[in-house]
Amino acid sequence: MEILITNDDGIYAEGIYALATALKKLGNITVVAPDAQRSAVGHAITIVDPLRVNKARRNGRFFGYAASGTPADCVKLAIKTLMKKKPDLVVSGINLGANIGYNILYSGTVSGATEGALLGIPSLAISLDTFTKPDFSAAAAFSVKIAASMKKRRLPAGTLLNVNVPAIKASKIKGVRVTSQSRTSFNDWFDKRKDPHGQTYYWMDGDFKPKDSDAASDLNAVKAGYISVTPIQFDLTDYKFITTLDTWKL
Amino acid sequence: MEILITNDDGIYAEGIYALATALKKLGNITVVAPDAQRSAVGHAITIVDPLRVNKARRNGRFFGYAASGTPADCVKLAIKTLMKKKPDLVVSGINLGANIGYNILYSGTVSGATEGALLGIPSLAISLDTFTKPDFSAAAAFSVKIAASMKKRRLPAGTLLNVNVPAIKASKIKGVRVTSQSRTSFNDWFDKRKDPHGQTYYWMDGDFKPKDSDAASDLNAVKAGYISVTPIQFDLTDYKFITTLDTWKL
Repeated sequence: MEILITNDDGIYAEGIYALATALKKLGNITVVAPDAQRSAVGHAITIVDPLRVNKARRNGRFFGYAASGTPADCVKLAIKTLMKKKPDLVVSGINLGANIGYNILYSGTVSGATEGALLGIPSLAISLDTFTKPDFSAAAAFSVKIAASMKKRRLPAGTLLNVNVPAIKASKIKGVRVTSQSRTSFNDWFDKRKDPHGQTYYWMDGDFKPKDSDAASDLNAVKAGYISVTPIQFDLTDYKFITTLDTWKL
Repeated sequence: MEILITNDDGIYAEGIYALATALKKLGNITVVAPDAQRSAVGHAITIVDPLRVNKARRNGRFFGYAASGTPADCVKLAIKTLMKKKPDLVVSGINLGANIGYNILYSGTVSGATEGALLGIPSLAISLDTFTKPDFSAAAAFSVKIAASMKKRRLPAGTLLNVNVPAIKASKIKGVRVTSQSRTSFNDWFDKRKDPHGQTYYWMDGDFKPKDSDAASDLNAVKAGYISVTPIQFDLTDYKFITTLDTWKL
């Protein structure tokens, strides 16, 4: 099994190392990831600038390819240029922080897997629900389990799996739930500040304290101590609204 | 009517000027747009860097606010900080180049309208299907018509309208079709090159020559000479696949 690994926290992040180490059990690993953090880049790709690729070492060994672009760039580059054969699986993560609700639109982690799915390859995004003192072991172990399942079964064309793991001890995790994307998102605002030269600048800040009454949502599964697995796809058409929009007589 | 206008081609682009000029007929215009081109940024937001905002003039007059961020940043900044009252409508465009099929995932134009929709405001993205010698007049005129319709009627929460206008004379446009997002995307590849110092770099290139058998798609409407209006929404859950995924017994 050929596995392509990427992330948005950068190739030197702890999460991608835990992921690559775990997935080695299943086959041949290729890591192509951003050379530094690219959080909240959404599904950005780099077209007006060139991309650089350098070999990256970790713990004294070759670990993978560090690219100057976004997670979507990394997956495109890997599949179209760097890898000799197409991967059987694309895995993006393990992200520091959950990717839940509408926040997945901003997520570089999900975007890496999205690019894989759009290129016709079974793809998985995996995130851990904490920003501090991460223990990636439960998420890494689950990535092996779900990747093995994906090898045996088939996802619909263009659909990927978005996995979120609660940040609790593996022994406390209650199980796995197949979920839907909750209709929640970050609440954000801007700090207005002055720089040392007296010029105004703005800095985005935010928090994520959502509530969601839908028991089947990604948010509530993780809150309740379950691993959440949401199948997501990218036909954004609001089919339910089409008939009404037809009556507008545009 | 308070109208917020943004784009991804930058505040000095021709398309946003045509749009702002046309929409003035309907109410009070605020332009907040990137200070330079931000194409293919997807739904990126800027969180690790500060944002700068400067007043921009066009044709000798104040035109709007030029921000150092992405279209999504611009809409967030406008609504949360720069505008005194919330807009009644967010319009993003007029983009140079269609935003059709899976390409809308990469689109900064659509992303500006997405941010509006997620913030609860009726939102519209509008694009012209050409990269060369654009005549924005038909698209600008249609933006007024559809904005007036949106004022009278109601979109579902979280749904926006994605409009694509064929690059033909206004008199040749056959009408308006409510469409679905086609399952097509750019075909892309990388040029591998050497810089003046002998170092390798990669540059993304691509073309968009898709075929789509679905007569109701955005692609085929525009090809046939119609203005395409697709309602899009951001619950990405693949509901059809949930039951099958449950049988995986993860």
